[in-house]
This record gives sequence, structure tokens and C-alpha cells, in this order.
Amino acid sequence: MDDTVTLTLDEAEALSREVLTRHGFDEAHAGAITRSVVAAQRDECHSHGLYRLIGCVDTLHHGGVSPDATPEIIDIAPGVVRADARQGCSLLAFEQARPALIDKARTNGIAMLALNNAFHFSALWPEVESLAEEGLVALAMTPSHAFVAPAGGQAPLLGTNPIAFSWPRPGTFPYTFDFATSVVARGEIELHRRAGEAIPEGWAVDRQGEPTTDPATALEGAMLTFGGYKGSALSIMIELLAGPLIGDLLGHETQPANADGQGKPFHGELLLAIDPATLLGTDRERHMQHAEALFEGVLAQGARLPSQRRHEARRRSREIGVTIPATLYQELDRLRQPKGPGT
Amino acid sequence: MDDTVTLTLDEAEALSREVLTRHGFDEAHAGAITRSVVAAQRDECHSHGLYRLIGCVDTLHHGGVSPDATPEIIDIAPGVVRADARQGCSLLAFEQARPALIDKARTNGIAMLALNNAFHFSALWPEVESLAEEGLVALAMTPSHAFVAPAGGQAPLLGTNPIAFSWPRPGTFPYTFDFATSVVARGEIELHRRAGEAIPEGWAVDRQGEPTTDPATALEGAMLTFGGYKGSALSIMIELLAGPLIGDLLGHETQPANADGQGKPFHGELLLAIDPATLLGTDRERHMQHAEALFEGVLAQGARLPSQRRHEARRRSREIGVTIPATLYQELDRLRQPKGPGT
Repeated sequence: MDDTVTLTLDEAEALSREVLTRHGFDEAHAGAITRSVVAAQRDECHSHGLYRLIGCVDTLHHGGVSPDATPEIIDIAPGVVRADARQGCSLLAFEQARPALIDKARTNGIAMLALNNAFHFSALWPEVESLAEEGLVALAMTPSHAFVAPAGGQAPLLGTNPIAFSWPRPGTFPYTFDFATSVVARGEIELHRRAGEAIPEGWAVDRQGEPTTDPATALEGAMLTFGGYKGSALSIMIELLAGPLIGDLLGHETQPANADGQGKPFHGELLLAIDPATLLGTDRERHMQHAEALFEGVLAQGARLPSQRRHEARRRSREIGVTIPATLYQELDRLRQPKGPGT
Repeated sequence: MDDTVTLTLDEAEALSREVLTRHGFDEAHAGAITRSVVAAQRDECHSHGLYRLIGCVDTLHHGGVSPDATPEIIDIAPGVVRADARQGCSLLAFEQARPALIDKARTNGIAMLALNNAFHFSALWPEVESLAEEGLVALAMTPSHAFVAPAGGQAPLLGTNPIAFSWPRPGTFPYTFDFATSVVARGEIELHRRAGEAIPEGWAVDRQGEPTTDPATALEGAMLTFGGYKGSALSIMIELLAGPLIGDLLGHETQPANADGQGKPFHGELLLAIDPATLLGTDRERHMQHAEALFEGVLAQGARLPSQRRHEARRRSREIGVTIPATLYQELDRLRQPKGPGT
């Protein structure tokens, strides 16, 4: 038996929707989650792809997440829209606030979306890329559970605090990055522990703040930010902007989605959108074309652009579909059955 | 003879103004440059302090910089103001556009200043801190001459591209950072070359893209960004936002201020300002207070906040003045004389 299964994008989408609605998500949430999960699978971001559905269903069964909350979209100021997810998934709140964000960015040149009270489990790049598709420049950030020590410290205080950016490019995929401000994802350290392998120095410190290469000691201590004190300063900025500035939680306060401490955290997310057309008027095309010189300069050195592998995967997946482990397919297939285990 | 000279802040300000006006800067530019240079000296940022006046005067004598340009302040959109420095120093353009930026941030929640065609030599933190004094959250970025290779590359393409952020704190100095996205300043490598010392691995690559610890080889090759591919991605973002987005130059295009290739570069700068009061209304105070928990968490670990040393220096300087090398004082004192050398 083949140990992988290949699905068309339509089949992947149907599978995701069926799993989610079978377990109680309403059509609107199932649609928004599916669009994010299938986009990640299409781009071969496996950890944010179809695999993530298992965690969604699990979190829902632990209680605390609303599977059918209608996000409340509030006009705060000419340049600010707020989306209160009301304990639902962040993705539907983003989708429903997105038109107002785009409209405000076009009118004002720059605008901001404060997304609150959200169950958050997705990558940020699908959101910033969806704004780049409208010709906007976009920036997003969110806190997460506190696993990371500030530079010079030894205890978890900061979230892994990802930041994502997307810049529209004429005729090709946008320039996009999306990375955690921790050196690596926490899962990387767990993988090393399971494999009985040492982690590289610089990933984490022990409980005394001393560098460690032992993954178990690292998991008891704290992860480090990328780039030393500079990455630490950026991580704190992300906490502030996607936390108190929008009236939401800090990384060390993010609550598990439910009373038993399982499941994904609730917190906020901040998005900025800037419209180059508003800034540049009729010179827009010339300056956007001009930015291409920078990308060409990177590629001419044999260096890669961030997200380049992901965009190459997207081209492939559109032609030949997505391939996932057979065990994952079987688990998801069970989850979509009317009387399968887990319902 | 004592090899240092201590000046009150008033004396430092008078010295700076006299040097600048003696060499042709008008009162408005001399005032704006002086405020930045004296603030840096007060905070013991020596490289951006009074020492920087020598470079200002030198650049002016090489021609190309306007010592008396009146910045043009243009209302681009409800959320965007443009300041065309018209080949003058960036500092006066910032000061003159600042009220409009603040006003737009208060009205819209978020606003942006596009500063163009500027002779740029100053740190960014005085500008973001001046916005934090108004209760605003501020972010600034600017490109600079291309000395830095993108991650995976080997040739200079990116500027050292600093980014600065400031967050207002009740009753104390703001949370502020301001750092180059290169691992270190180029001057650090030059200091190592002069001292005949190796540089640490990770600062630079040779012309083939191989790591080097030889400062001369590094200066012929390219500097690296902090934090590997993540810092490189951020550096490219800064180029895009403070370059093509505002209709200005990329790092590898920044022109020397004058025909003979000497002097400081001309380019753009981007500033964002966000008003927490607009976002949070009557909850503002509670959430700003809440952010203090994060700073307390950092300090409780024995870690430092960025700019902490600078703010401590500020307290000292306000009491006892600023101390500079006697040789620097003598050079500046000569530069302010009616018939001194250099006029």
C-alpha cells in the first residue's frame, strides 16, 4: 500500500470542510478555516496544512472555542477597524473585516485591523498575501504562549511572536515573509528530544539562563529570540502592538482555549495595510517596478527570496494536487464520517 | 591639561548652533540639527553627538546639501503626510511635518510620514521618542548606503537599514529601540582593521560569499544582516517601505550628497504613528498600564530594556552636563570662530 495520498485542491477543500462541519463548526467558520488550511497545504507548509484540522477538532471538543460565533466588526476610527472574534477562530474575523481594512487603506493611505478575542492557530502569510493581491502592502503580527526569554533573561516571558509582511509584485507572487521571532519553533526542540539529539547552541537557555544544548533542559528553561538583543527588542514590540495597543493579552497571559488547559490559545492580532496607489498616485507603477530591481539584485547573487520555496510548491500543487501521508488521510477520513471515532 | 571638557546642555547647544550657522546653515536647520545632536550627546550616543557636526560641516563644504531649504509639507491623504526635504537635512523636514503626523494619527488612529529627498545622518530614536512624548506609538525606518549582502548572497546590496520603535510609558522614559539590521555598524569593522584585530565570524563575508574574520577582506566583501535570513528579510522590508513605497531610493542607489562622492547620502525615511487613545478610548490608561507588566517581567529577570543605558545617561547629563574629548571640543571651537580653518 502506498504510504501517501494525493488529493486535488478541490478534494482537499471538501475533506477539510466535511471534517470541520461534522464536528460542529458552522459553514462560515469551516469555510474560513478551510481556505487557510488548504492554502498552507498547497504551499507545502505541512504543519499549518490539513494536519492542523486534527488540532482544530480536538480544541473544539475540549470546549471554550465557539464554532459558530459571528464576528463583530466595529468601525473605531477612519484608519482603524476592530474585529471581535467573540471566542471564534481568528480566520473568519479576518475575512469579515478585510473589506473594511482594504477600503480604509485605499481612502487613508494606511489603515489597521485590530483583531481581538480570537482562537488563533494559523500562519499569518495567507492574510498578508490576500491583502497584497489587492495591491496593498501588508504587515501582520500576533503574540502566542510565552516560551521565550528576553535577551539577558532566563525565564519564559515572550511569545514566539510571529511577524509577516507582504509586498505586491507585478505579474508574480508577492515578496512575503512570515517568521517567529524565536530562533526556532518549539516543535523543533521537541523533535530533537524525541530523536535523542542535541540542539544547537543559541536556541535556548536552562533555568539559570545558561546556554544549553540538551533539548529536555531547554524545554524546562526558555527558548531564545533570533538575532540576540535585536530580535528580543522586536519580539517585545510585537507583544505591545498585538497586545495592549489593541486591548488584548500579552504572551504570558494568553489563555488556553478551555478550562482544562488544552487546546490553542486566545489572543489578538494586528494587521496594517498601506496602499501604494494612494501614496504614489500615477507614479505607482514606476516605483513598484523599481522595487523589482531589489529582488533581481537578490536573485542575481544566487540568494533566495523568502517564501520562494513556498511559491514554487504552489505552482506544483495547482498542477498535480497535494500529497499527504496516508495515515493523516485515514485519520481525517475517519473524522469526516458520521459515526467515526472522535465525533 | 585635562583631556576632556564638560559642557552644560545649554553650552553644548550654543556650540552646535554657532558651528552650524558659521558654516552657512540657516537658523531653522541649525536648530533642528542641534536638537538632534545635543539629544544624542546628552544620551551619550557619542557617534551621533557633537562629533557628528564635523561631518555636517564637511558635507556642506563638499556641496550638494542645501543649508537653507524650506521643506515642503504635502497632505497626500487623510492618513499620509509627505515632507519633501528638498535636498536639505531630514531633521527640519521631520520637525515641520511632525504636527501634521500627530494630528493625523489622533484623527485616524494611524498615520504615516513619507520623508523624501533628505540629507540623512541622524539616529532615528529622537524622532520616535518625540512622538512617544505625545502619547503616540511610533515606528521609523530608513535605508542607507548598500554595504550589506542578503542572506545567501555575497555582494553589497542592502543598506544597514535601521529601524526604531518607541512606546510611551506613564511616568518614565518610553520603551525605545533603534538598531541597524546589519550585525554591526560598518565603523566597527573599520575599528578592527585599524587595531589589527580579527572580527568575529558572522559579521561579514568575502567576495565569494565565504565567512571571513579578516576586517580588510570583510570591507571588500559584504557585511551581513543580524539574525540570518530573518534579519535579511526585515532589511529588505525596510528598503521597500522607506524606498519605493514612498517614491524614494533603494540602498544601492542612495547618492552621495555631492558630485565628488564625499559626504552623507540622500534618501527617504518612513515614520508611522499610532494613537492608543483613538484605539482604546477610555480603556487606554488600563491597557497602557497593563503593558508595564511586560517591562517589569523583563527587569525582574535581571534583563535590560533597550535604551536603558541611554536613559540613565540622560538623567546624568541633565544634572552634570556632557563630557567630550578636549580634542573634539577644540576642533568644534575652531569651527565656530569667524576666521577659523574650515570656513
